[in-house]
Amino acid sequence: MTDALAPGATIGILGGGQLGRMLALAAARLGLKCHVYDPDTGAPAAQVAAAHTHAGYDDLDALRGFAAAVDVATYEFENIPTAALDAIEAQVPIRPGRQALAVSQDRLAEKTWLSGLGLTVAPFAAVDDAAGMEAAVARIGAPSILKTRRFGYDGKGQARLHAADDAAAAWAAMNGAPSVLEGFVDFEREISVIGARAADGQIACFDPGENVHRNGILHTTTVPARVPRALATDAVLLAGRILNALDYVGVIGVELFVTPSGLVVNEIAPRVHNSGHWTQNGCLIDQFEQHVRAVAGWPLGDGSRHSDVVMTNLIGDEVFAQLGVADAGLHLYGKAEARPGRKMGHLNRIAPRA
Amino acid sequence: MTDALAPGATIGILGGGQLGRMLALAAARLGLKCHVYDPDTGAPAAQVAAAHTHAGYDDLDALRGFAAAVDVATYEFENIPTAALDAIEAQVPIRPGRQALAVSQDRLAEKTWLSGLGLTVAPFAAVDDAAGMEAAVARIGAPSILKTRRFGYDGKGQARLHAADDAAAAWAAMNGAPSVLEGFVDFEREISVIGARAADGQIACFDPGENVHRNGILHTTTVPARVPRALATDAVLLAGRILNALDYVGVIGVELFVTPSGLVVNEIAPRVHNSGHWTQNGCLIDQFEQHVRAVAGWPLGDGSRHSDVVMTNLIGDEVFAQLGVADAGLHLYGKAEARPGRKMGHLNRIAPRA
Repeated sequence: MTDALAPGATIGILGGGQLGRMLALAAARLGLKCHVYDPDTGAPAAQVAAAHTHAGYDDLDALRGFAAAVDVATYEFENIPTAALDAIEAQVPIRPGRQALAVSQDRLAEKTWLSGLGLTVAPFAAVDDAAGMEAAVARIGAPSILKTRRFGYDGKGQARLHAADDAAAAWAAMNGAPSVLEGFVDFEREISVIGARAADGQIACFDPGENVHRNGILHTTTVPARVPRALATDAVLLAGRILNALDYVGVIGVELFVTPSGLVVNEIAPRVHNSGHWTQNGCLIDQFEQHVRAVAGWPLGDGSRHSDVVMTNLIGDEVFAQLGVADAGLHLYGKAEARPGRKMGHLNRIAPRA
Repeated sequence: MTDALAPGATIGILGGGQLGRMLALAAARLGLKCHVYDPDTGAPAAQVAAAHTHAGYDDLDALRGFAAAVDVATYEFENIPTAALDAIEAQVPIRPGRQALAVSQDRLAEKTWLSGLGLTVAPFAAVDDAAGMEAAVARIGAPSILKTRRFGYDGKGQARLHAADDAAAAWAAMNGAPSVLEGFVDFEREISVIGARAADGQIACFDPGENVHRNGILHTTTVPARVPRALATDAVLLAGRILNALDYVGVIGVELFVTPSGLVVNEIAPRVHNSGHWTQNGCLIDQFEQHVRAVAGWPLGDGSRHSDVVMTNLIGDEVFAQLGVADAGLHLYGKAEARPGRKMGHLNRIAPRA
C-alpha cells in the first residue's frame, strides 16, 4: 500500500464518455473522488463525478489546473495529444504510463512492438504514399485491410481490400493519413483478455471473453469463450507478458484472434475495454474497479468469475426497446441523444457457471 | 412502463448519506440523474450526483426549488418533517408514499398498524409520562426496552429495563419524549427481508438475511439466513403483505425476530436498508437499483441471488484496516472523518451458493 491514495483522494480522468463514467462510479464505490476532463459540457461522466473541467485537449492552462486538482491521472481513450500528457505528467503521475500510450496510439508502433515481444500479429506493412501502397499490397496481398495508423476506432478509418485491385481506392479513402496494411487473418473466433497490473507488479486477468462484431462495432461478448482450457490459459499468460513488458499499471484490453496455428494479437487498448463490461455482473470486482485500484496504488481485487455472462451492446435507438428489461443487468450511459451507431448502453445476462 | 421516467430524467433524493450515495450510483447505472437534498455541504451522496441542494429541511423555498428540479422524489431516511414532505408533494410524487412514512416515523403507530394487519409484534405500551411508565411496566414487565416513539436509530433513544426497578431511570433517559415500552422477545435470531414493490403492484423480495448486531449497530448480515425454507418463505410473504397494505412503491426493509412460536416483526424501514447491502455483490440487481426502478416507474429487475454473502459493516476506524482487502467487495462511503460508531463502509464476502 506504499503511495496508495487515501479514501477521499481524487483521480483525474481524461475523457468523460461511458468508460470514464463507469470508472467514476467504481471509484465512488471505493470512497474516491473523480475529476473528469472533457471538452463536452454534457459528458456522461461529468454527471457522476465530484468535479468536471470542460476544456479542449490543447488548453494547457486548463490541463495544468486539472493536474493540480488531482492526485493521479488516468484516461478512457488513448488518442490524447502528447503536449497534454506532458503538461499533466509535470505535476502528477499518469497511469497507465506513457509507453503503453505511445505503443497503442499508433498501429505501426503497436504491431512492431508486439512482434518484438515475440508475439504473433497479422502480416503488416507501413503505407505512407501511393508507391508504398503498391509495395505493401505486393507483399501482404489480398484480402487485407488498410487502417490509419492513428485515431481509428470501431471500424472507422479502415478500408477493406477484397483484391489487389482495390489498393488505390483504399489508399484514397485514407485521405493521405499514414496507414498500415494488415494481412487477412483466417480466424475461428475473436477473444479478448482484460488484464490488470498493480503498481507493485501484481497481475490479475479476467477470464477470456468471446467477441462478435456487427458493422465494425462490438455486438456481444460471451464468457466463457468457447476455447480449450489450455488456450484460455495461453491467452491470459500472453496478456501478462504484455503487462509486464510495459511495466503497466491499470487495466488493459488485449484482443486476440484464435487461429488453427495459435493466437494472433489483433490489438491492445491501454484502458478499460468494451469487451470487459461483462465483469460488472459476472465478477466480485469488475474491470472498472480493478483499474481504479491499480491507478490508486491499491492491491488488485478478486476478479474471479461467479457467473457465465453474455454482454450485448445497445447501439443507437436499440436502447429504447430495453428499458423494461428485467432479467439482465442494464447499464445506460446517460447520453442525451441516441444517434445511429452510438453506444448507448449494454446488457449483461448471467447464468450459473456451466 | 406507463408514467415511467425516461433516461436522463432526475430523481430527487432527500438525504445525502451513504444510502443516498448508493441510490445515486444505482440511478447512474440506469442513465438517470440524481439531485440530492442535504443540509451538509460534504454529504457523501453529493459527490456522485448531478446536482445538490444544501439547505435545511425547514427551508421551504429550497424544498420547492428542489421539487421543481426533479421528476420524482424519494428519501434515504424516514424522519423527514411533514411540512417538508407537503411542500415537495405539492409539485412531484414522493415514493414510497406518505402512509409508509407516517407508519414508520412513529414506533407506536408502526406497532399498532402492524398488529392491525394481523402480524405479531412485541408486546408494547405507550409511555407519555411517569404514571404511564408505571402502568406500562406493570403490564409489559421486564426485561423490556423503552424507546422514543420518533427519531431513534442504531440503538439511540433506547434504554433497557433489566428489572421493573429500572423503570424510573429508563423514563428519565428519554428526556420526556413520548415513548413506547416494548416487551422482551426471546428470539433465536434476527432476520430481515428486503422487499420491493413497483408502481404497478409487482413485488420482488430478496432472500432473507440473518443479522448480528454489536453495540446496537448492525455488524453482519449473512445470506442465506439459517432458517428452514418454509420459514424463509413465510418471511417473504409477510413482507409482501406489508408492501401491498401500504400500496408501497420502492424498497422496504422488514426486520423480523425468529422465535419458537413464529416470526415477530421488529420494525420496518421505508427505504433501502443496511441489512440489504449484501445484494450489491450477491444479486444481478441490488436493493438500490430495485428502489430506483420502482421509484422511476420501471419494472423491477431480477433480484435472485447468485452467491452466498456475508456483509460486514466497517465502523469508525475499522475501515482503515480494510483498504487493502482483495477478496471482498469493498464499499466506502466517502466520509471525511472516521468518528467512533460512524458507518464508514462495508465489505461483502461471497461464496458459491451452498
